Amino acid sequence: MSYRKVPYENLKKFCTDVFKGYGYSQEESEDIVDVLLQADLFGIESHGVQRLIRYHRSLMQGKIHPDARASVISETPVSAVLDAHGGAGQLTAIFAMRKAIEKAKNTGIGFVIMKNTNHYGIAAYYSLMAAKEDLIGLSFTNTEAMMPPTFGRQAMLGSNPIAVAMPADPYPFSYDGSTTVVPRGKLEVYNKKEEPLPNGWGVDEKGLDCNDAAVILDNIINCKGGGILPVGGSSPLSGSHKGYGYGMMCELFTSILTGGPTSNHWRRGETSQSFIAIDYGMFGDKKEIRQHMSTFMQELRDSNKAEGQDRIYTHGEKEFENEKVRKTEGIPVNEKTEAEMREIAEYLHLDYEAYLG
Amino acid sequence: MSYRKVPYENLKKFCTDVFKGYGYSQEESEDIVDVLLQADLFGIESHGVQRLIRYHRSLMQGKIHPDARASVISETPVSAVLDAHGGAGQLTAIFAMRKAIEKAKNTGIGFVIMKNTNHYGIAAYYSLMAAKEDLIGLSFTNTEAMMPPTFGRQAMLGSNPIAVAMPADPYPFSYDGSTTVVPRGKLEVYNKKEEPLPNGWGVDEKGLDCNDAAVILDNIINCKGGGILPVGGSSPLSGSHKGYGYGMMCELFTSILTGGPTSNHWRRGETSQSFIAIDYGMFGDKKEIRQHMSTFMQELRDSNKAEGQDRIYTHGEKEFENEKVRKTEGIPVNEKTEAEMREIAEYLHLDYEAYLG
Repeated sequence: MSYRKVPYENLKKFCTDVFKGYGYSQEESEDIVDVLLQADLFGIESHGVQRLIRYHRSLMQGKIHPDARASVISETPVSAVLDAHGGAGQLTAIFAMRKAIEKAKNTGIGFVIMKNTNHYGIAAYYSLMAAKEDLIGLSFTNTEAMMPPTFGRQAMLGSNPIAVAMPADPYPFSYDGSTTVVPRGKLEVYNKKEEPLPNGWGVDEKGLDCNDAAVILDNIINCKGGGILPVGGSSPLSGSHKGYGYGMMCELFTSILTGGPTSNHWRRGETSQSFIAIDYGMFGDKKEIRQHMSTFMQELRDSNKAEGQDRIYTHGEKEFENEKVRKTEGIPVNEKTEAEMREIAEYLHLDYEAYLG
Repeated sequence: MSYRKVPYENLKKFCTDVFKGYGYSQEESEDIVDVLLQADLFGIESHGVQRLIRYHRSLMQGKIHPDARASVISETPVSAVLDAHGGAGQLTAIFAMRKAIEKAKNTGIGFVIMKNTNHYGIAAYYSLMAAKEDLIGLSFTNTEAMMPPTFGRQAMLGSNPIAVAMPADPYPFSYDGSTTVVPRGKLEVYNKKEEPLPNGWGVDEKGLDCNDAAVILDNIINCKGGGILPVGGSSPLSGSHKGYGYGMMCELFTSILTGGPTSNHWRRGETSQSFIAIDYGMFGDKKEIRQHMSTFMQELRDSNKAEGQDRIYTHGEKEFENEKVRKTEGIPVNEKTEAEMREIAEYLHLDYEAYLG
């Protein structure tokens, strides 16, 4: 599949006008697009503009409600419960993390939970919102079920990512990963390439090792059993119960706290999420703590490499490097995605060539 | 090695008098022993009474300061910074979690960090302290370095366990696990049995796969390189960067926030820990949320088993079952541990036979 590099600003302008076309304000559209394109800037194509067509269809089919805005159900000085009313996941999640940040600045901690929402893109976007305000940020979301528990063959937990960010120099610590060995998008890539999956990624409907991405994806979509293994694989010997445990931690901080459906009962528009911001200044001098983190991260990068390896990364490093390159050199967009974008432009009466020709 | 079952109450009385012998009060001794024997009740022999000799020697050699008590350095309504001054890890950790619980009851959240402390036993003890008060509990500790980062061959992070507990019925959710594939104790067991390690647990000083527990343990103790892999193994294909990421999350919540030495600079008496309690009542009706958690855990246990498996566990379940049996039938103590206990009794002029004969 061929790729073309598209200037970031042009892509941003186009996508913003697309969301305005669905009825979002200029500011709201910019917020949604900022999440979407941050994935492309980071080099996470699966979560970037290639998903525009999915959002387009969801909005057209009424699966995402364009008029829905998050509302506050209840709050305390350190917490809030929000309802997204089935609105755009990015928009309501930004609202939620802003609220968590505001509370952290006032009290030290803000813990905000959100119910009845949709897919919010990359979890790291929200933890990094806090880091940009010189706070620790965490973000959790449940998803439709795709992880069987250890010794199980029925998908019961979602991919349930956990994202954590901490300010540091020259770039923050930013961890963002599903609690499954890989997220579903990775299986989709193997499926498109018709390549067998590496061992230890998935199990079939009997709970037995399976290297066929098509089988596992079909089983997830149709709830036939099997799924993607927890990080740590299928046996407690390799730490299966640990990935299952992190998945449970995510489920606790999302669907359990909101009272929403757990991943095994997931329904569109009823995803649960949470957003935590922590002002680490309550533990000491912020400059010193930040410097301590930066020093440790530098020591990690400088530490001795395994034979055959020439570089050790800290979490987020690759993504920030990608961002620097892509902001100047453009974002690679594949031809299939471009065809979808032209379709959307036509539907909304936007002149695609004028933006990206 | 032969085991003898010892009544829990007798063992408790003996151990309590041992710690009183070191100068701790009745109440303090009971607290320390409660942590120690909770490990034995849960069936986690490595962290139980078999460690008494280590505490004995550390106290005798002045490595743990029997007079040290935790003090509060600073606090806010939602947080506190404590200094353990090199005291007994269990005692200072109980003090810290009690403070977190008190804050959570007042404000919704208590986030307490502790510097200059020692090994605190099983991390789950503290998260479960919060769960007993109908709160969510979390606990983190760094340790001496034993985990090389992905692509590294130098141990830079500790085993860095994360413990999370949430009240539920008939028993709570209680996750407690190192962010390495296995904790060091597991390697010690293989070493004693002179059995080769399963693949994917450890790497040698070159960062290459290693099945020899003795080599890895010696390398850790003498900082020669290599160590125990992060959960997810050695390759990002199996999620190595995820275990490394959870290890970083633990390091952030311990040594980074306290300003203490990160695991690669760990020194005895300078371990860092944190304790978080969350009153989930700020998110809704507590009975409903607790019931939601209980229902999900039951659904997990009831879900379809993989071929060849007959049971799915929720986290903590095995431990609570062990506890029930051991409280009535006694705690298995091995002969080597008993010999050490006799040595301690002699030193403190306690009549071992009167307690455990």
